[in-house]
Parts: sequence; C-alpha cells; structure tokens
Amino acid sequence: MSRAKTDLRPQQARSAETRAAILAAAADAFAESGPAGARTGAIAAAAGVNKAMLYYYFRSKSHLFEAVVENHFAEFNRRALEVLAAPGPARSVLLRYVNLHFDFIIAGQRHARIDQQMMMTGGRPLERLVRKHFLPRTLALDRVLERGMRTGEFRRADRRHTAISIVALIVFYFSASQVLQFLGQPGAYDRAGLKARKREVLDFIRHGLFTDPDAPLS
Amino acid sequence: MSRAKTDLRPQQARSAETRAAILAAAADAFAESGPAGARTGAIAAAAGVNKAMLYYYFRSKSHLFEAVVENHFAEFNRRALEVLAAPGPARSVLLRYVNLHFDFIIAGQRHARIDQQMMMTGGRPLERLVRKHFLPRTLALDRVLERGMRTGEFRRADRRHTAISIVALIVFYFSASQVLQFLGQPGAYDRAGLKARKREVLDFIRHGLFTDPDAPLS
Repeated sequence: MSRAKTDLRPQQARSAETRAAILAAAADAFAESGPAGARTGAIAAAAGVNKAMLYYYFRSKSHLFEAVVENHFAEFNRRALEVLAAPGPARSVLLRYVNLHFDFIIAGQRHARIDQQMMMTGGRPLERLVRKHFLPRTLALDRVLERGMRTGEFRRADRRHTAISIVALIVFYFSASQVLQFLGQPGAYDRAGLKARKREVLDFIRHGLFTDPDAPLS
Repeated sequence: MSRAKTDLRPQQARSAETRAAILAAAADAFAESGPAGARTGAIAAAAGVNKAMLYYYFRSKSHLFEAVVENHFAEFNRRALEVLAAPGPARSVLLRYVNLHFDFIIAGQRHARIDQQMMMTGGRPLERLVRKHFLPRTLALDRVLERGMRTGEFRRADRRHTAISIVALIVFYFSASQVLQFLGQPGAYDRAGLKARKREVLDFIRHGLFTDPDAPLS
C-alpha cells in the first residue's frame, strides 16, 4: 500500500464531512430565511469553514440550495424505493409507504419550506431533480398500484391520478400549515395532532382505494 | 333629485370600474412576475390609469397584492357559501361543492401562483384573509360533513381532517403542476386532462367518505 493512498482516505472522509456540515448549516439557513434571504457567509461560519471553502464545494448559493434539496430527496428515495419494492400484499406495501412518507416529512420539517421554495422557483434545476428522484419513485408506486388493482386489492382507477391523490393527502397538511394555524387549530403539528392526521390519511386511503377497507392487513 | 346626487353616481361607478381595471391588470402582472417582480408603473399603464391613481386606490404594491388575493377569495366565497348552504342530501351538496371548487380554480388558473405566493409570504395579511374568507367556508363545509355523518351518508371520521383531505385532493393537482409536467404528463391541464382529474377526485372522495359510494345521487 503506497503512502499516498493511505493519506488520501482521511482527506476524502474530511471532505465528505465538510460537505455534510455545509449542507446541514445551509438547510437551517434556507429554512429560516429562504433562498433569497440566506447568507453564504453565515452558512460557512455555522459550518465552521470559510466562505471560499463553501464556494469551492458548491460554486454558488443557488447550487448550494439545489444540493440541499437534492440531498433530502435522495435520502427519502433510498428508503422509499426499498419499501415500495418489498414483497407482500400491495395493500400492506402501500400503507407502509404512506407511513414512511408521512414520518419522513415530520422528521425533516425544516425542509417543507425549502422544498416548497424549490417547487415555486421551478425551471431547469427542479426539472433535473424531478426526473432524477421523483420519476423512479413514481414508477415504483405505480407498480404497487398496478399490482393491487390486478389482484383486486384496490378498486380500478386511473393509477396516475391515484398516485397524485395519495401524495396530496400526505403532503398538503404540511404545505398548508400556516393557513391551518390561522384557522385556529392549536396542536395540529404536535405529537398527538400529527398522529391523528396520519391515522385519518391512512383511513381515507384505505376507504378511497381498497376494495375491502376493513379487511385485516397481513 | 339634486344635481349633486345624480352627478355622484357615475363618479362612483367610474371609481369601481377603475378599481376593477387595476385589480385585473395587477392579477396579470403578479401571476406573470410574482409580487417582487411586478412593477406598479406597468400595472397602472395596463389598467389605463396613472401611477398616482393606483397608489390613491391601493396605497402600496403589497396592499395591491393583498387586494388581488382578497378579491379572488371573496368571489369564491360568494358561490361556495351558497352551494354549501343549499338543501338536499349532504352527499350531493358535497360533490357539488367539490365540482365548484375545482371549476373555480380552472377558471382562474392565473391565480394559483398568486395564492401560493400569498401562502408562502404569510404573516398578518394572510392571517386576516384566512380568518375573513376561509373560516366561514370551513365552518359551512364542516356543517355539511356533520350532517352527512349524522344521517349515515358519510362514514364517521374526524371532520376537520376530512375537510383538509377534500381540499388537498382538489388543490394539490394545481399547486404541483410544475412537478407533474416535469414527470412527463402531456395534457394534464388541457380540457380532457382536467376532466379526468375532476372525475378521479370525485371518485376518491365518494369512496373515501361515503358509506355507499355507488348509490345514485338524488
């Protein structure tokens, strides 16, 4: 083993750590102040690096913003694709996926605003992220819906619209949080409120899609 | 009848017309360029008034933005409250309301982006609009859900969450339009695509909520 090689690995590890630290600090800053308001100087300081280092890794604030969103999308996909490809009745797979998606949003609530900003900004970066991350997940969910309709577990419906409806039921609660709070819903996002929302979403999907909503899950 | 009085009415009518013209031009500008990018000078020119007139009526760009959103909310509420208060089975009332909401979004698609900007901006203006316009509509929808659960037309479920789920199924399709387009859904927003979406939403709500989804509507 050459010295050069053994020296290289800690360097790569440090590099990955630095990158992760910048991404974490950036996620906080973007969630707090939005992409326009966040300052790269403050992000670098919070990550314990200098500003030049931040630009060395991410080139620009907008690339950094994109990287924060992508990091989050990729993390979800790793788990989502595993759940969606698991064997077992389509009903169980679908409800596990809904659970996962819901819990993932709760665990990363600071990302809700970031993701929404990305959706509004749109353009090429969003297009790339959607094609790379949403598309494989959408296809995997479609296969579960197709299987469930074929086995008679799900009623026959347009699969694309069914997938959109399922996502709507999961994510809308979070994107509408301001409105719901102004409507006077104390506790809507505390532990008990989120648990209640998840239960109602699972119920609505079971009734909305399953041919036998009350049959026990295997 | 005094001359002063007869002279006054055309003046009031002109004033309402001017206000409406500015609001229409502003809706176009805000939809096109967002609240930050839209220029009051260009809005005034498009409305056929001078900039001083615009400020006379609306004080500031942010007040004008708020007025555009409010105008749209108020228009929807006028029709929504009428539909929700109509007599008849709760099932029919609910589906008519879903139809109305869906069609209203389609008719005012330029407002989707404006409303979403207002949701993201949040703060006091949003709070005021939500309390004034969303709250009475939410209460009226709640009464329909309560009635349908009492008569056994709807399954027992948390009414607040059921209302949120219904709204989610209607509006998410429009707020996610960019993502859906990048996922490669040509025609998702043309006549046939919108008709298909509405049908699927009505089906999902019937199955998700009605105790007998296939019973004919009176």
